[in-house]
Amino acid sequence: MNLGEKFGWRRLSRQLLVVTRWIRVFRDRVAVPGGELTYTWIDHPGSVFVVPLLRNGSVVLIRSYRYTLEEECWEVPAGALHDRNGRSLEEVARAEMLEEAGASGGDLQSLGHYWCANGLLRLKTHYFLAHGVELGPRAPENGESVSTVLTLPLAEAAAWARDGRISDGESAFAILLAESACAKRMP
Amino acid sequence: MNLGEKFGWRRLSRQLLVVTRWIRVFRDRVAVPGGELTYTWIDHPGSVFVVPLLRNGSVVLIRSYRYTLEEECWEVPAGALHDRNGRSLEEVARAEMLEEAGASGGDLQSLGHYWCANGLLRLKTHYFLAHGVELGPRAPENGESVSTVLTLPLAEAAAWARDGRISDGESAFAILLAESACAKRMP
Repeated sequence: MNLGEKFGWRRLSRQLLVVTRWIRVFRDRVAVPGGELTYTWIDHPGSVFVVPLLRNGSVVLIRSYRYTLEEECWEVPAGALHDRNGRSLEEVARAEMLEEAGASGGDLQSLGHYWCANGLLRLKTHYFLAHGVELGPRAPENGESVSTVLTLPLAEAAAWARDGRISDGESAFAILLAESACAKRMP
Repeated sequence: MNLGEKFGWRRLSRQLLVVTRWIRVFRDRVAVPGGELTYTWIDHPGSVFVVPLLRNGSVVLIRSYRYTLEEECWEVPAGALHDRNGRSLEEVARAEMLEEAGASGGDLQSLGHYWCANGLLRLKTHYFLAHGVELGPRAPENGESVSTVLTLPLAEAAAWARDGRISDGESAFAILLAESACAKRMP
């Protein structure tokens, strides 16, 4: 008996509605206690967020145009794992830091992984902190829309995460995780 | 000129691929600097997360079966805004606390709002902290799959958020925001 059956959930049928390079949208028909329901959900290959930290203790933020929102957001470098091609999570994190922020080098520390929007998505987000990166020129991808690279003391970035000036939820969470990890490392 | 045009992004066409009670999946054709791309993205009515805090300083967590993951996750009460029917965010937060955790009463404090998975979703998540709730019987919705209600001191819940035992990213983030808000309120 799988876990779903323990809760009285049993898949009756599945349709694959949409496929892209990044996602697959499924529509499942599911028997649940007291009836049936249609569950539309999205499978995603996962993503990586990385907080680049300079030797002086400042965080590197990017200002990214988001087509979905018609807004610019302060974010940390991040990328999806759809074109992973056998690369490790760390290699993807380093590539995104370089492309989006021009940050390279440093020691990567894992801050763990979490599910994102788990009622709708099967999307695992991996978080990293990069201690002691250096800033150089960016290597932007086609269609990448980063207008600004900003360095900010970690405590100030954490204040921006808490008050919503960093409006991207995963970036704000990444910075709070990084703040805790740094407090542990340098008490 | 809208913000997209400032970055050289211009929508050429749009298809509505999928509609459910919760989401709309769009496929847009977009002109970007150096070419064109297809952008598939999802519009969502938003969601509310609420951290219920008892008078003794413990947080109320729920263990929720997630069909998307075939896993149970520790979470805080949350719900989508698709059936809002004119209710305020606070009313939705209170309804979810009662349904999922049997928590009622208390003073709601906003912890702000953030975008979730902003490369794929247009989904605004609203966060609340409920100070001084009381626990009673739950009022579960059809298809709701909460197996356990657990109370945990806030500091311990924050440790679970940081080490990934709370594997739901938005719940973990909500608890870190709640911890900061409580530290500010009771220094």
